[in-house]
Amino acid sequence: MMYDLVIVGAGPAGMTSAIYSARQKLKTLIISKDFGGQMAQKAVEIENYPGFEKITGFDLISKMENQVKNVDVVREKVIEVKKENDIFFLKTEGDKVFQSKVVIIATGAEPRRLNVLGEVNYLGRGVSYCSTCDGPLFKNKEVAIIGGGDAGFETAIFMKNYASKIYILEQEESVKASIDNQKKASGIEVITSARLKEIKGDNFVNQIVFELSGKEKTLDVKGVFIQAGYVPETSFPGDLVELNEKKEIIVNFETFETKTKGLFAVGDVNCGKVKQIVVACGQGATAVIHGYKYI
Amino acid sequence: MMYDLVIVGAGPAGMTSAIYSARQKLKTLIISKDFGGQMAQKAVEIENYPGFEKITGFDLISKMENQVKNVDVVREKVIEVKKENDIFFLKTEGDKVFQSKVVIIATGAEPRRLNVLGEVNYLGRGVSYCSTCDGPLFKNKEVAIIGGGDAGFETAIFMKNYASKIYILEQEESVKASIDNQKKASGIEVITSARLKEIKGDNFVNQIVFELSGKEKTLDVKGVFIQAGYVPETSFPGDLVELNEKKEIIVNFETFETKTKGLFAVGDVNCGKVKQIVVACGQGATAVIHGYKYI
Repeated sequence: MMYDLVIVGAGPAGMTSAIYSARQKLKTLIISKDFGGQMAQKAVEIENYPGFEKITGFDLISKMENQVKNVDVVREKVIEVKKENDIFFLKTEGDKVFQSKVVIIATGAEPRRLNVLGEVNYLGRGVSYCSTCDGPLFKNKEVAIIGGGDAGFETAIFMKNYASKIYILEQEESVKASIDNQKKASGIEVITSARLKEIKGDNFVNQIVFELSGKEKTLDVKGVFIQAGYVPETSFPGDLVELNEKKEIIVNFETFETKTKGLFAVGDVNCGKVKQIVVACGQGATAVIHGYKYI
Repeated sequence: MMYDLVIVGAGPAGMTSAIYSARQKLKTLIISKDFGGQMAQKAVEIENYPGFEKITGFDLISKMENQVKNVDVVREKVIEVKKENDIFFLKTEGDKVFQSKVVIIATGAEPRRLNVLGEVNYLGRGVSYCSTCDGPLFKNKEVAIIGGGDAGFETAIFMKNYASKIYILEQEESVKASIDNQKKASGIEVITSARLKEIKGDNFVNQIVFELSGKEKTLDVKGVFIQAGYVPETSFPGDLVELNEKKEIIVNFETFETKTKGLFAVGDVNCGKVKQIVVACGQGATAVIHGYKYI
């Protein structure tokens, strides 16, 4: 099937692209396995998206989704993009192929794995990357959050609704979370200079092992929330894009076009330094208007 | 008074800058005579701001305004900005002077004057640049709208609520409004290749004179809405910024910084090609984060 514009990904950048593309009367397709991106998993309410004093990520992305009209949707993962004679060919996991004149990559970023012992083994059995998904499973239990940035603190603040005791482990000497988030984290035990080494348990997690000033320490916890940042999802475009050292797609900041004409990258997947919802949305709108001119 | 960050202008770009600046705990000031920018004057509801299926410009800017906390506000016009020893000095019409480490220009754009005979004389007496402001004054009267772009058509669609007869005059051979807006404009008489020459009347407007294919024509109307685009409001920063041929401030698109360190320009006032609310908001957030790093 031939489209004017295909959007890969359905977070805020992808949704905004879809709203704009449909309004430009472009034949538009979204391909995305999941909807909502990181936003749908955010642990605390969003307070900095202009227009809403407070809104959950799930509600905001749902509102955007409702605004998307006259756009086809395929709920699959894209595994390859190629370009031949000015036409892009997108192949999905399910072996479907879609053609398009313009492609916008809005795949965002995925939680960074720590690659410590036990992390993969206990995934879904105590190890989680998403407190809004799994938080309620740890009611009256002790949990550790790995990462002392805003995401780690927001996870901790959210977990105060459930957990009996919360630790935050940060490997640096000081935490990076905003003062605001630090203030809200009263009652939470923050351990700095702590490097996670192993997640242990039987059927489920029951202990973490970490290094503190050269000494090995343990904490008995039933849950481990890993909040160690995100890695951009840039596996499929191959040679059509250039990546920076963080594996982010390098774009022209005026248009959000990649090194390939007609191929754009917006939101957290690109090399922009400000990873914010409204910024991602603005980029989506900008890319569509430039893509429209390109067609 | 010394601030960390001063925002000049209070449209969506300025409001988002204020939301972000306050959340970064910067001592922040907004200086702006008017609040809401073009948005507060928009004739039809906004349908492409992500998160709201339909919202009036006034409602959206009010929601953003409510989100701005811990920010000082001065309702004046800035007439000069200078920089000495890394500090900006902003002078207002009322001769107040404010100091700041970072300045964000978010002054947007003002309606373009046509400079035809009668335009200035009949301002407020039949001539208007804002249908949401003045539309109800023309109940059951005939009006002409000058400009066949989206703004002209949206004004016409809005005026269907009031006027007995509506003309759109476009100087080019065809109108530039979106198909969507053209469809909604049923019952409106569109005259292309029409160049306005004069606005006539006694105390109030009662006629316009225009040229059509080399011949002079007249229309008896009581109202003239001029929708001939916008010019950026860039009078005050002087040599601190560089302008392009449209008098827009040239910025680095990654940071929205101007040629002067610590001085940023966001929204319709800069040289970005995509003039959209969500894009302006994204730029505001981006500039603040880069301004924060600069401090």
